[in-house]
Amino acid sequence: MSEPATETPHCKVVLAGTIAKGLLEETQEGLKKLDRKPHLVGFLASADPAARVYAEWTGKTCRENGFDFTLRELDREDLEDALLSANTNPTIDGIIVYYPIFSSRQDQYLQQIVDVSKDVEGLSHRYIFNMYQNIRFLDSHNQKKSILPCTPLAVIKILEYLRVYNTILPYGNRLHGHTVTVINRSEVVGRPLAALLANDGACVYSVDVNDVQQFHRGQGLRKRRHEVVELPGWTLENCLPLSDVVISGVPGDKYKVPLHLLREGAVCINFSSERNFSSEVKEKASIYVPAIGKVTIVVLLRNLLRIMQNRMDAESETANIVEQKETVEEAAPVVS
Amino acid sequence: MSEPATETPHCKVVLAGTIAKGLLEETQEGLKKLDRKPHLVGFLASADPAARVYAEWTGKTCRENGFDFTLRELDREDLEDALLSANTNPTIDGIIVYYPIFSSRQDQYLQQIVDVSKDVEGLSHRYIFNMYQNIRFLDSHNQKKSILPCTPLAVIKILEYLRVYNTILPYGNRLHGHTVTVINRSEVVGRPLAALLANDGACVYSVDVNDVQQFHRGQGLRKRRHEVVELPGWTLENCLPLSDVVISGVPGDKYKVPLHLLREGAVCINFSSERNFSSEVKEKASIYVPAIGKVTIVVLLRNLLRIMQNRMDAESETANIVEQKETVEEAAPVVS
Repeated sequence: MSEPATETPHCKVVLAGTIAKGLLEETQEGLKKLDRKPHLVGFLASADPAARVYAEWTGKTCRENGFDFTLRELDREDLEDALLSANTNPTIDGIIVYYPIFSSRQDQYLQQIVDVSKDVEGLSHRYIFNMYQNIRFLDSHNQKKSILPCTPLAVIKILEYLRVYNTILPYGNRLHGHTVTVINRSEVVGRPLAALLANDGACVYSVDVNDVQQFHRGQGLRKRRHEVVELPGWTLENCLPLSDVVISGVPGDKYKVPLHLLREGAVCINFSSERNFSSEVKEKASIYVPAIGKVTIVVLLRNLLRIMQNRMDAESETANIVEQKETVEEAAPVVS
Repeated sequence: MSEPATETPHCKVVLAGTIAKGLLEETQEGLKKLDRKPHLVGFLASADPAARVYAEWTGKTCRENGFDFTLRELDREDLEDALLSANTNPTIDGIIVYYPIFSSRQDQYLQQIVDVSKDVEGLSHRYIFNMYQNIRFLDSHNQKKSILPCTPLAVIKILEYLRVYNTILPYGNRLHGHTVTVINRSEVVGRPLAALLANDGACVYSVDVNDVQQFHRGQGLRKRRHEVVELPGWTLENCLPLSDVVISGVPGDKYKVPLHLLREGAVCINFSSERNFSSEVKEKASIYVPAIGKVTIVVLLRNLLRIMQNRMDAESETANIVEQKETVEEAAPVVS
């Protein structure tokens, strides 16, 4: 009793703009709690056209959503001093630097120049360390959340929106049971993303041109944070048929994910500026997200609100400590 | 940099009582819309002790939740006449018969005696046909939902509660991307359950002592309803490592699901009255539901509300048709 097949397969295409909209509403709620407009300053010292596009997008999104944005274009030799000055300038709430600049280790040096309390990109060593170590908070009372880098966090927000994160499971383990392939292991996106997803409970295959690595917290998620295991001889042929989520971010227009290896009904997300999935992905995927840029920008604004909140909490804590100290000093003669 | 392992694995054990509670609240909302207390009548013509226990449970759950329940114990030779009489008795809203009675094809004959409009168990041929054919409504306006058998529907309600059903996908396709193994292919639970899950988009392996069958709507869910393919030579060794959901209902206390074949983080549900999963399932499962009985009873009440609603809709429709007919007849002399 075979039935006529429908003409189009059932794949839900979800656009970044749709997901960004929901996150922007949250951002508006956050803005209401502040006594002033957040001020983000972008430093453009790069001739890279992609950097300029990103800078313009940031400005547009800021202005449309109640944030102040200043773009400072400068010679790359002046950048270090300009950043040091911005760190101590009380009218600046957040700093973003458009990389690449020197395209060398000097860029990593510059990333550490930005003060942690203004680092909206989450590139400070302290944030990166926390991310890999699965340390979620900056304080011992678990009030101030650590900052995560924008692009990996955008992918996580997308997976939350798509309900791949299962909220019936406890916070921190909500990807338990999911197998994810991440194609690209750059230090900027691929590797941090694999680590974040594995820390949240997924079994992650991190695929690069050279090899495949598994990031995982082990059977029953017994480990507190992910460990990395090299899988010699593995390729996409091994990973893709096992993966219910496939996230690809290979630069360049040549690369396409081999769709014949895809698991039926997989969730597919592209974070490359080029389309890593050909349109036939809709034949097999249950959900397909073709690009993530608009979510990344909103995550940047979200990070800006978070560091402002963290700084306000820190200031009120200091005030409390001073107050307590004064009370103790006043009380001292009585109790001594 | 290996970390100390935690003592217990992360597995969320979800009890049927917890899930039943939420469904009971929905039931209370439904009750408010009725002008009288629903009246369920149970017919017990079996010496099976399990049948008596189920009857007692039904009575208790009815009384505790604002439903009237009458238990009629009778000789099995009187059952057919008693059912025919109940079918036309306007004080009876729903009928449940505790099987097995003759433990032969005569039981299937009796199931067709109960009027569809009072069949809370969803055993009438029309309901069973709709279920296998993936026809969800009784009317062409998609207002009156078809009735599903209680135990398979209980498993679906559990999977909805566990958010395995992804509500971001359209209704009818919300299991797309999930691979489910159902162990047991009885006509009462296992086979209808495999069909329902496959109709909702899952790739289902239906496993019985003799063989393994795949129930699926095909690549991209192109088929309108599931098709069944025999998988010669397949066993649990093939199915379990692929399955993110494992549902077992093997009667008898000897059977245990072989846990070494389980996929890390699988969702495990037992619908047998015996424990088909040993307690070590928590080492690997992300979610474990040890029993489903309490949900099944609530689903029965839910079905009762639904058939009452369907009957009321049918009555008001008939009234409308009569009214319209009268209007047309009155108007006739003018337009002729």
